[in-house]
Amino acid sequence: MHLNRLLSPVAAVLLAAGSGGALAQTTSAADAPAVDIATLERIRDAAMSSDFAWQTLSNLADKVGPRLSGSAGAEAAVTQVSDAMKAAGLTVTLQPVKVPHWVRGEERAELVEYAGRPQGITQPLHLTALGGSSATPAKGLVAPVLIVHSVAELKTRAAEAKGRIVLISVAFDQNLADNGQSGQAYGQAGEPRFIGPAVAAGFGAAATLVRSVGGANYRLPHTGATKWEDGGKQIPAAALSAEDAMLIERLAAQGPVTMKLLLTPKTLPDADSHNVLADVPGRERPDEVVIVSGHLDSWDLGTGAMDDGMGVAAAMGAVQVLKSLGITPRRTVRAIAWMNEENGGRGGKAYFESVKDSIATQSAAIESDFGLAGPLGISGAISDAQMKLLAPVGMVLRGIGAGVQDTRGGEAGADIAPLQIAGVPGFAPLVDGRHYFDLHHTAADTLDKIDPQALRRQTAVLAVLAYYLAEMPQPLDRAPIEGR
Amino acid sequence: MHLNRLLSPVAAVLLAAGSGGALAQTTSAADAPAVDIATLERIRDAAMSSDFAWQTLSNLADKVGPRLSGSAGAEAAVTQVSDAMKAAGLTVTLQPVKVPHWVRGEERAELVEYAGRPQGITQPLHLTALGGSSATPAKGLVAPVLIVHSVAELKTRAAEAKGRIVLISVAFDQNLADNGQSGQAYGQAGEPRFIGPAVAAGFGAAATLVRSVGGANYRLPHTGATKWEDGGKQIPAAALSAEDAMLIERLAAQGPVTMKLLLTPKTLPDADSHNVLADVPGRERPDEVVIVSGHLDSWDLGTGAMDDGMGVAAAMGAVQVLKSLGITPRRTVRAIAWMNEENGGRGGKAYFESVKDSIATQSAAIESDFGLAGPLGISGAISDAQMKLLAPVGMVLRGIGAGVQDTRGGEAGADIAPLQIAGVPGFAPLVDGRHYFDLHHTAADTLDKIDPQALRRQTAVLAVLAYYLAEMPQPLDRAPIEGR
Repeated sequence: MHLNRLLSPVAAVLLAAGSGGALAQTTSAADAPAVDIATLERIRDAAMSSDFAWQTLSNLADKVGPRLSGSAGAEAAVTQVSDAMKAAGLTVTLQPVKVPHWVRGEERAELVEYAGRPQGITQPLHLTALGGSSATPAKGLVAPVLIVHSVAELKTRAAEAKGRIVLISVAFDQNLADNGQSGQAYGQAGEPRFIGPAVAAGFGAAATLVRSVGGANYRLPHTGATKWEDGGKQIPAAALSAEDAMLIERLAAQGPVTMKLLLTPKTLPDADSHNVLADVPGRERPDEVVIVSGHLDSWDLGTGAMDDGMGVAAAMGAVQVLKSLGITPRRTVRAIAWMNEENGGRGGKAYFESVKDSIATQSAAIESDFGLAGPLGISGAISDAQMKLLAPVGMVLRGIGAGVQDTRGGEAGADIAPLQIAGVPGFAPLVDGRHYFDLHHTAADTLDKIDPQALRRQTAVLAVLAYYLAEMPQPLDRAPIEGR
Repeated sequence: MHLNRLLSPVAAVLLAAGSGGALAQTTSAADAPAVDIATLERIRDAAMSSDFAWQTLSNLADKVGPRLSGSAGAEAAVTQVSDAMKAAGLTVTLQPVKVPHWVRGEERAELVEYAGRPQGITQPLHLTALGGSSATPAKGLVAPVLIVHSVAELKTRAAEAKGRIVLISVAFDQNLADNGQSGQAYGQAGEPRFIGPAVAAGFGAAATLVRSVGGANYRLPHTGATKWEDGGKQIPAAALSAEDAMLIERLAAQGPVTMKLLLTPKTLPDADSHNVLADVPGRERPDEVVIVSGHLDSWDLGTGAMDDGMGVAAAMGAVQVLKSLGITPRRTVRAIAWMNEENGGRGGKAYFESVKDSIATQSAAIESDFGLAGPLGISGAISDAQMKLLAPVGMVLRGIGAGVQDTRGGEAGADIAPLQIAGVPGFAPLVDGRHYFDLHHTAADTLDKIDPQALRRQTAVLAVLAYYLAEMPQPLDRAPIEGR
């Protein structure tokens, strides 16, 4: 997932114990939408007994593996998922998306000077280039390190940045994450990664390093995107493991530190790729669409099982459940495997461009891109009053421990954000995100981290919610969010 | 640390609540050795207010860093520690040790064939050569993978091993570790690493891989030593991350798996190195020696802060405390920083050779090489009756939560094992080892993992115990253990 997702499991648990129950009680018979509860239960139970999502995820993570936009893996993923959806009887469309094509190269760094360095000794560092990083010279570069602790501090020390390797060292606030604000913790530590390199480049820095954004210190660098100014200078940029950022801080407290850095990534011309759309066409209003989605691209270090293979698998599993039960809702349910969430968001933008002139046809959008710890229920960027119309969803999902209905503003998913800004009500599964960032954007994002039963629950949540939204006699009110 | 250490924190906690107190009560005045309690308390309190051990460890981990036997780091560590001990006023001796000199090279692997592999896709693996591994051809080797789950199974499938990359896939039993048997868990999963490659080599295997031995799956390979038969065939040998071992098992369940493997380590001629001995000479019987120790060499992936920088730092800190207080015990207290614990044990053997003809002069030996979670007290490979003689040690250490006195058989430390076999009573700090193997022999063994206050406690435990053993009017009874 991207920046700016704020889900609070603490709040969620309170809601589960309290107003969740109240929601069901205050929904009178007169309010109840004309959606058959037994059908919702049938969908839930079919998802809970299906291995389709697990198979989809296994194939994606284990057989395709890493699938950064523009790579052979990304294209193999498009083929694999679209073939699987066709085989399951869905109506599949490949929507063209032009994507960035950045390729990681060699990456090595070591501390070559520091106070107390024994003769002949250097300290090897663990780091990984950020997506979009420029390359160093082929033999690497050697420069003194300037440490700052925020982008604001960097701006006040602009003159010192010239010719130096700037390390913006901001620790991920696991305490904040533990208190249910992992999205905020990510946003705080992620800002230096996202905008720091461009700021440092403007000041003439030789390179920019950030401390990895995430919890669980196992000397893993966490990659991610960085944003360059249009036409601005680009420099080498990488994430250090938390351990190595701390090492440099300790050594720098005792004297100057000099680093040798080698990064050889390449930025190639934009590549052709696709969003994969798989429809269950609506029986009454096929032109009205409820989207259920995850993103197909991943970072290149791990196999993207969590980010966001599980989201794609659960979304595809949701429409496969409807198809296998022969259930045709009032509106179209459209599963989308988005391309290029991680380093450009081009898939979400391309889809939005294709529907923006008929945006009223997009009734709702769901994206699953924040892991599946739980899931505890659903989270909607809609009003409490509107959420009450979905009380039957919570009632049916309570049977699998996923009955919480939480409302909050903002982005429900990076790919559906353009739709939400244009008024489309946005949803995500409600999950416990406290440890989501332990593995996020690292090599350790692999299939073994996924609990198959949690994936079934995630699939059930998406299937029940998507069906309900597609079956409601009247769509939900528009719920525009502010753009970033 | 090495194989075969069994410390049970659960048993320790029970002991702390129960017989620990009883020990103190049943020690009558008549039994009480003539060691001044106030002096023990002074030693404890000085260790708890000293930063000497932390400085020693910081310098070792951050400034020397990795220090595998034979490397420039190992030699820098010898110099750094001996200089520090001389500066602290200790009597320092460098004892020559000839050590193996194995140097890691490039290491890469990928799965190049498996069922369902999309065209052009391979799966990169995370692995690291085991110490003593041979090299593959410079361009790597490609071979089908044979998976077995024990050395015994490998022996029954000898004919299948020829020409294959043998993966001995044994999961580390974290449940066993959580139940206080982490040493046993390490022994079980470690056996394939230690003897598997030689067995597979004998069967004509192209290479041997083992699943990493340790908990906490963050796609970290855990290196370690493997043992070749004298004059036997040697082949490339490496540890896969747990994730990659699981990946291969999942793919192999669906069809043949072929791997490309590149490892370019080198074995160079044995190198000259040293044990560092730092003495507080005894006031009455200087020829009688109580050893307090840790090992100076580390694996090359991390900075060996835990394994075993903290052991060296605590041992050196223990004698520095005595020296700084001007305390001269009856016998000599000798801190030893052992060389080559990890891949040969040559330092322990060299010391043993130097004292074996006067082994009665070695009164006791302590080694700290199992982390410092706690520490909870002391563990002695001695009888319960002998441990009662140490009741004042427990009483004084109870003031810092380290008063448990646990007796158990076997090795208290790999370097002191030769002494123990010859009858020298052996001791180690008693620690909670449940998560010791999370970081063991990985790149993530770094200074940030060490709690400075726990290091002070560890130093206090070593200092109080070593002083007491050196001050007792009569040494403990001999306590020979069985050799392995």
